[in-house]
Amino acid sequence: MPALALHPAAQDLLFREARTANTFTAEPVTDEQVQAIYELVKYAPTAFNQSPLRIVLVRSDEARERFLPLMAEGNRTKTASAPLIAILAADNEFHEELPALLPHFPQAKDLFFADRPVREESAALNATLQAAYFILGVRAAGLAAGPMTGFDFPGAQKEFLDADHTPLMVVNIGHPGDDAWFPRSPRLSYDEVVTAV
Amino acid sequence: MPALALHPAAQDLLFREARTANTFTAEPVTDEQVQAIYELVKYAPTAFNQSPLRIVLVRSDEARERFLPLMAEGNRTKTASAPLIAILAADNEFHEELPALLPHFPQAKDLFFADRPVREESAALNATLQAAYFILGVRAAGLAAGPMTGFDFPGAQKEFLDADHTPLMVVNIGHPGDDAWFPRSPRLSYDEVVTAV
Repeated sequence: MPALALHPAAQDLLFREARTANTFTAEPVTDEQVQAIYELVKYAPTAFNQSPLRIVLVRSDEARERFLPLMAEGNRTKTASAPLIAILAADNEFHEELPALLPHFPQAKDLFFADRPVREESAALNATLQAAYFILGVRAAGLAAGPMTGFDFPGAQKEFLDADHTPLMVVNIGHPGDDAWFPRSPRLSYDEVVTAV
Repeated sequence: MPALALHPAAQDLLFREARTANTFTAEPVTDEQVQAIYELVKYAPTAFNQSPLRIVLVRSDEARERFLPLMAEGNRTKTASAPLIAILAADNEFHEELPALLPHFPQAKDLFFADRPVREESAALNATLQAAYFILGVRAAGLAAGPMTGFDFPGAQKEFLDADHTPLMVVNIGHPGDDAWFPRSPRLSYDEVVTAV
């Protein structure tokens, strides 16, 4: 197998040793840490640089109390133990920012994204790419991420977002606690995933 | 801004200096390189470890000739210049592998994924996460990625996939050529993307 250009320690940090955490210590995660993550992962690519990901940090006690009942029961305890809860959402009106984001092709806003259904589909795809970049960014910060889709999507949208923002997932963020993960599950082999024609 | 745990050189390689390439040199990309990428990014998380991403490498002259007319006109020249073209797709029948992928919870296959529409939605979300991991994996290999959604999706599905596999995007892979990219476009500021409640 050819060596990758990425240093093996970075491979471990982002992929091989990083795990989805189910428990967390009480050590807080600061807004400055989240900003450092964002300032790194914002550079990863989206179509037309549309950048539709939006993030709501559920920080205050009041907001956490409002949020926890929206989690699926099996996810509630671990989410309650996370020092920081982030709701990742897609902005379906991302095209309003497009002339600023794509200065060499400002017509893209009207040529490609005039219709809301087209925008919703594009926002979902590209915000999901950005969600993955964000998960790896959390790991790049030396933190553990716990991404989850087991929650009340309409409830989260109503309580924490609006009609223009579609929730994608919730990510618990923190330092892993005791018994933070199951044994690693198997992965598909290369030949099960990749074919050449 | 707090320092990230990830080494700055790795930050540059994956995020800050990496760019979406629009031209490529003739230097080939081997199956061994693609396998090294897969063996790294396969560890990144998906819901229920469902791992729905499938990849078709369009390698032979015959396959490339069949594929290029499916690209949007504006993407055809750069795709023709890429030493390797990969079609990323979501396997909507991923649940067949789930008992092997999630040995501690084999019932997930029938409890959560018995219905095809549920599977399609989950496959799209999770294969898109994996597509982002793959794009960063290409960069981890020291290669440039050119992800694109400007192609004939039904045509690509008919010619290179089947009814159970939904195309997500095409990724050109290679070493960047002359004038490989535009100047970097702006990104949204932290405050435009992240709010705390």
